[in-house]
Amino acid sequence: MTYTIKQIADALGAEAVGDVNTVIQSIAEPASATADQLALALKPEFAKTLADGDAKAAMLWAEADWQSYGLSAAILAPRPRFAMAGLSAMMDPGTGGEVGIHPSAVIHPDAILGERVSVGPLCVIEAGANIGAGSRISAQVFIGRAAMIGENAHLREGVRIGARTRIGARFIAQPGATVGGDGFSFVTPEQGAVERVRDSLGDQDEAKAQSWARIHSLGAVQIGDDVELGANCCVDRGNVRDTVIGNGCKFDNLAQIGHNVVIGNDCLICAQVGVAGSTRIGNNVVLGGQTGVSDNVFIGDNVITGGATKVLSNVPAGRVMLGYPAVKMDKQIELHKLLRRLPRLFKDVATLQKGVSKPGDSD
Amino acid sequence: MTYTIKQIADALGAEAVGDVNTVIQSIAEPASATADQLALALKPEFAKTLADGDAKAAMLWAEADWQSYGLSAAILAPRPRFAMAGLSAMMDPGTGGEVGIHPSAVIHPDAILGERVSVGPLCVIEAGANIGAGSRISAQVFIGRAAMIGENAHLREGVRIGARTRIGARFIAQPGATVGGDGFSFVTPEQGAVERVRDSLGDQDEAKAQSWARIHSLGAVQIGDDVELGANCCVDRGNVRDTVIGNGCKFDNLAQIGHNVVIGNDCLICAQVGVAGSTRIGNNVVLGGQTGVSDNVFIGDNVITGGATKVLSNVPAGRVMLGYPAVKMDKQIELHKLLRRLPRLFKDVATLQKGVSKPGDSD
Amino acid sequence: MTYTIKQIADALGAEAVGDVNTVIQSIAEPASATADQLALALKPEFAKTLADGDAKAAMLWAEADWQSYGLSAAILAPRPRFAMAGLSAMMDPGTGGEVGIHPSAVIHPDAILGERVSVGPLCVIEAGANIGAGSRISAQVFIGRAAMIGENAHLREGVRIGARTRIGARFIAQPGATVGGDGFSFVTPEQGAVERVRDSLGDQDEAKAQSWARIHSLGAVQIGDDVELGANCCVDRGNVRDTVIGNGCKFDNLAQIGHNVVIGNDCLICAQVGVAGSTRIGNNVVLGGQTGVSDNVFIGDNVITGGATKVLSNVPAGRVMLGYPAVKMDKQIELHKLLRRLPRLFKDVATLQKGVSKPGDSD
Repeated sequence: MTYTIKQIADALGAEAVGDVNTVIQSIAEPASATADQLALALKPEFAKTLADGDAKAAMLWAEADWQSYGLSAAILAPRPRFAMAGLSAMMDPGTGGEVGIHPSAVIHPDAILGERVSVGPLCVIEAGANIGAGSRISAQVFIGRAAMIGENAHLREGVRIGARTRIGARFIAQPGATVGGDGFSFVTPEQGAVERVRDSLGDQDEAKAQSWARIHSLGAVQIGDDVELGANCCVDRGNVRDTVIGNGCKFDNLAQIGHNVVIGNDCLICAQVGVAGSTRIGNNVVLGGQTGVSDNVFIGDNVITGGATKVLSNVPAGRVMLGYPAVKMDKQIELHKLLRRLPRLFKDVATLQKGVSKPGDSD
Repeated sequence: MTYTIKQIADALGAEAVGDVNTVIQSIAEPASATADQLALALKPEFAKTLADGDAKAAMLWAEADWQSYGLSAAILAPRPRFAMAGLSAMMDPGTGGEVGIHPSAVIHPDAILGERVSVGPLCVIEAGANIGAGSRISAQVFIGRAAMIGENAHLREGVRIGARTRIGARFIAQPGATVGGDGFSFVTPEQGAVERVRDSLGDQDEAKAQSWARIHSLGAVQIGDDVELGANCCVDRGNVRDTVIGNGCKFDNLAQIGHNVVIGNDCLICAQVGVAGSTRIGNNVVLGGQTGVSDNVFIGDNVITGGATKVLSNVPAGRVMLGYPAVKMDKQIELHKLLRRLPRLFKDVATLQKGVSKPGDSD
Repeated sequence: MTYTIKQIADALGAEAVGDVNTVIQSIAEPASATADQLALALKPEFAKTLADGDAKAAMLWAEADWQSYGLSAAILAPRPRFAMAGLSAMMDPGTGGEVGIHPSAVIHPDAILGERVSVGPLCVIEAGANIGAGSRISAQVFIGRAAMIGENAHLREGVRIGARTRIGARFIAQPGATVGGDGFSFVTPEQGAVERVRDSLGDQDEAKAQSWARIHSLGAVQIGDDVELGANCCVDRGNVRDTVIGNGCKFDNLAQIGHNVVIGNDCLICAQVGVAGSTRIGNNVVLGGQTGVSDNVFIGDNVITGGATKVLSNVPAGRVMLGYPAVKMDKQIELHKLLRRLPRLFKDVATLQKGVSKPGDSD
């Protein structure tokens, strides 16, 4: 698929300048761009490297002096990073796979596939599953009994969607993403050490050896529209009610969402984040990579956590958090600075002690 | 499957009161329960929300004044949380799947399946594998050569059990759980930087670029009875001897157990925990979510770690640990309090220094 | 496969002593070794346990007094840990699987398989994929469109290699390893809270609810020779250019490599490590288990991180790092010692304050 500079600019709502009929085959970074590629020079520091490549056209920021870079055409975007979303969608060749239903797929006769659904080789779709029109299902995917998936989904290879999951439109799941595993919920016959520690914060008294009885998961998972799940990430189903994920949420690889968790709209959950059971998360929350959130806590709207933050208690709306345990980011950064000065503080106190204990000494 | 209040109470060893022949279709949280559901009001604060729903029957705690909530029947359980284990098992409709051997499964003629074993579509069972009676194997599962699995196992979709793994009875594995990957064991031709750092704790002297030679894993994995593995979790096989997991252990999603690890009985390993190679863990240990444990350490019986604890050295039996590096939980909580007061401490010392250095100043 | 002591020693470049024609069936730890096994007693403390087993032959270190342990034969290796690499390879019986192409595999007619390639049951190999000679592909593996894999690869069950991935020779992938998921790259229409926090390190000003637009991944993944990926680990493809992994790198289970990351040669990436997008890592770097590395940072050659280290900024070559945030290991260990003395420091300062504020008091 090729486009002219003008076609691209029009599609992105950006300005085309110079020889706007230049034809573009694909996109590239400035230093490695060839003459038929559109170079991405979204900031002045990237534009400097245009001279290292052969690009004749580039995407630049709104006020860029494009001719100064020796280009014959350019696209000027008011917010180039956002323009990348539309541009990358136009240029995406996809990951391939035939259209249609592969004969090796095992599709139960009671499953319902919408119009133009494609199903790759060796998929399993169980009884009562319902796949929305236009959905593309890659190889070796599993869709459980009575699961519902909305229109125009894209499920990559090896995705597993458990029984009775309900998912909205335009769902994307990366390879190995897993929805609907059972919740991790076990209980001892008598009050156990963990329950006592939660009360005492440190004392488990005398421990009695007990085995764990399993609480079965009877709930399912509900997922809104425009959600994306990363590779090998896991969303567990609820115990009694459903685990719920709102519209527009994006999850990166290896993220873990426990049973009964409720997440609002438009949250960004980065790689290897873990959210423990029954925690509630508001709208527009961003959890940085490797963030951990304890069970049964509440995180308000617009909260942001830095990488590896460990949230052990409720966080009010709007907070920016960092560290283990999580505190406000500015306080955490101040604390890190003080810790670097701690060796000096110990010395200062030792000096003071000498001074006080021997006030008469003059050296 | 429906039950009367009396049938449920009898099965749970709890007391049925009121109209004990009331028929229950399923269970629900109090606020959303309908007239044919059993509301779960395990604590007084949940019972208050019975008024928001339409439940006529509820499960309550032992001494509950059940009639005060407008119910016509109730189940009074001495430990309602434990009663949930039995109740949820009774009410579990399962995740579906046909009974029997699906014709698309690839089962080696030398594999042995016990009575009433069901195998889902597109599974692979290799030569010499032996599956205990009554086991249910969902879709797209892999069971390697000479692997043995006990009676009444339940393997969810996409589970992978490596060659020569031996597993006891009543094994449960969530989607994507993986047993028997090779251990992560590499060595450089000459002593390498990591070995030097382990000795010096900080100084790697001059580093020499070396490549890594692979130590092959010749051991397998042994797993006891009543073990459950979470979605996409990993248990590696041993180098020379086997990796060993005792009876009654439960692992949550994305947990990682390295080669040669030995774990006792009835341990609870929460989501995203990592246990590095050759570490030994006692009985009844609970590792909170995202806990990390170094290689070659020993964790005694009944140890509990809080979320995200990083264990870098041995932990004696009975300890409750928190933090990075792990210290006793009460000490860690005290430390967190002191750290919050650290800015003040720096100011106090600065004031003292002023006072000491200018002892004559009076203000 | 059996070997004599002499054959093994010759293959390892080690010295055979005693009855060098003793035939060895397999290897074992000293305490459990039988008469036809080679006991691994790589250090004096292990050799002491030879008396607990029935071994007649053992592998020992270079100057070992082998006859003093009652052995009739021995292999003396100058660096026994390194000798384990060769010895374990000789003794590895493999994980089984038939040779050849299983009829249930779905192989596109336009895929190219080299000589002696074996493909297990229920694999999917898409159009244009190219598999090097001698490669062994286990069950249920996925290889995407136009992916290239070099000679003598070994892909375990359930591995997923995305479209257009290019991989060198002798690649090993443990079960469930996933290459070529889409990068996690999203952008809001207007400047968002995360961008503001990155500038201000703590202040997100007023948050405006925005949805996330997806930046499509157009790049692929390039992997060098002699690379191994752990079970269920993830390597994402690049946005515009490729994600790149050098020769000789080894990744443990559940590691996560983000889009556009560039890693040099001979790095060791331990379990559950996460490397965020666009970060560059040099040669011979070792990242300990659960290490996290922020996006867009640079880690120099020979850097080593201890377990659970969180790298939030650039690290110069040769550094040994520990902690969250990462600092030099020796400094971190000193800090841990000071933190243990912090309660005492608070008391000392309180005492000083008493002394200073009441200078006239004598007790």
